[in-house]
Amino acid sequence: MAAAREDARRVPLDEATLLPASPHPSKIFCVGLNYREHVEETKRDLPSYPVLFPKFASNLISADSPIQLPPESEQVDWEGELAVIIGRTGRRIAQKDAFEHILGFAVANDVTVRDYQYKTHQWLQGKAWDGSTPLGPWIVTPDEVDLDTAGIRTILNDEVVQESQLSRLIFDIPRLVSEVSQFTVLEPGDVILTGTPGGVGYRRDPKVFLTDGDVVRVQIDGVGEIISEVVNETIVAGSPTRVA
Amino acid sequence: MAAAREDARRVPLDEATLLPASPHPSKIFCVGLNYREHVEETKRDLPSYPVLFPKFASNLISADSPIQLPPESEQVDWEGELAVIIGRTGRRIAQKDAFEHILGFAVANDVTVRDYQYKTHQWLQGKAWDGSTPLGPWIVTPDEVDLDTAGIRTILNDEVVQESQLSRLIFDIPRLVSEVSQFTVLEPGDVILTGTPGGVGYRRDPKVFLTDGDVVRVQIDGVGEIISEVVNETIVAGSPTRVA
Repeated sequence: MAAAREDARRVPLDEATLLPASPHPSKIFCVGLNYREHVEETKRDLPSYPVLFPKFASNLISADSPIQLPPESEQVDWEGELAVIIGRTGRRIAQKDAFEHILGFAVANDVTVRDYQYKTHQWLQGKAWDGSTPLGPWIVTPDEVDLDTAGIRTILNDEVVQESQLSRLIFDIPRLVSEVSQFTVLEPGDVILTGTPGGVGYRRDPKVFLTDGDVVRVQIDGVGEIISEVVNETIVAGSPTRVA
Repeated sequence: MAAAREDARRVPLDEATLLPASPHPSKIFCVGLNYREHVEETKRDLPSYPVLFPKFASNLISADSPIQLPPESEQVDWEGELAVIIGRTGRRIAQKDAFEHILGFAVANDVTVRDYQYKTHQWLQGKAWDGSTPLGPWIVTPDEVDLDTAGIRTILNDEVVQESQLSRLIFDIPRLVSEVSQFTVLEPGDVILTGTPGGVGYRRDPKVFLTDGDVVRVQIDGVGEIISEVVNETIVAGSPTRVA
């Protein structure tokens, strides 16, 4: 781990209040269809350019917050992913320079509301639910992770439902940083979710979705683990559950 | 117009430096396929739910800034649109309450990089180019606009290329505010671009795209007009034009 500053204040982990690993990103990019076995389970062609869609800062939760199931959906699904956190501003970043702009990595669960995702051919409304997306528990610097060997897995209760290696990304991290920064500036705190392996609930037979009481874990070797309780969303007064 | 505060500082328009009408929105939603004649020209089915995609704050420019053509594309296109600016925070806003959350309206040009839009089935990378999207020149309050009669038109040099009425939106403004706020909080400054009428350059035969020296105007009755010069983007040193 990069050395902490000598004068940095230290707080024991169990006394700390976690925030999303990047609490206020100006932009969050997600990459769809970036592991071959996930592309195959969706029965789509391999992409020649990254499939990109957004989330928003208000979607993020800390690694110790529960995933809330909105009452509008019965199809909330998991997607374990490696998150790249940007550390230095750049536009039109060459692939060879990409790591100069990366602060580090975190674990993410790109929780997806499938019935909303597929309401139209654009996915935004299924990907951008507030309070849906754990990011954390911390950021590790790139030197701590062996991208050639690190495994990634998602465990639903006691069953391993996703398992792959970061080396199996179709578009690797330098390529993603380069392509995104071609059209928009990347700024410190911005997040790129690099895509999920095969094994999402929507593609199982029969389909499986998250339900109240589930525990879903995403683990990435050298990066960390998110353990999320799944609960039904509590709707506060004045926020009707369904638009009129 | 809503009365200005008595003590507000007044600046003559020709001495003012304009910003995008909402300079730092946390979220920008765009609606695709929201005028029947535009749906028809794309040969798609009428949507039953709004087709949503994002832009980012760094994409926005003021109404008096030129539209910059990135060197990576030869297919930059116009899309004149009404923008809704949010004034009050809300989540799961009922349609009947939508106007309580709206500050006002502005003119926008949802300038689109078509070859990037269609690189994959998700549109983000064609919609979110920095410096692409004029928004302004000001915000008018809802009482200043007759949504039942106001016309919207886009003029390329001297030719009217888009012409419709705001009343022809498939999903009207209360529906859009309600649907977006179902999944994410709307906050002051957030922007919803409500969609473009028929007549985009990509759907003409032969196709027409913006070129250096063009002037493109978007007019909405009661809201305002954006007059944009079109120029080739100047790439600053250190920002290569093409990722390696």
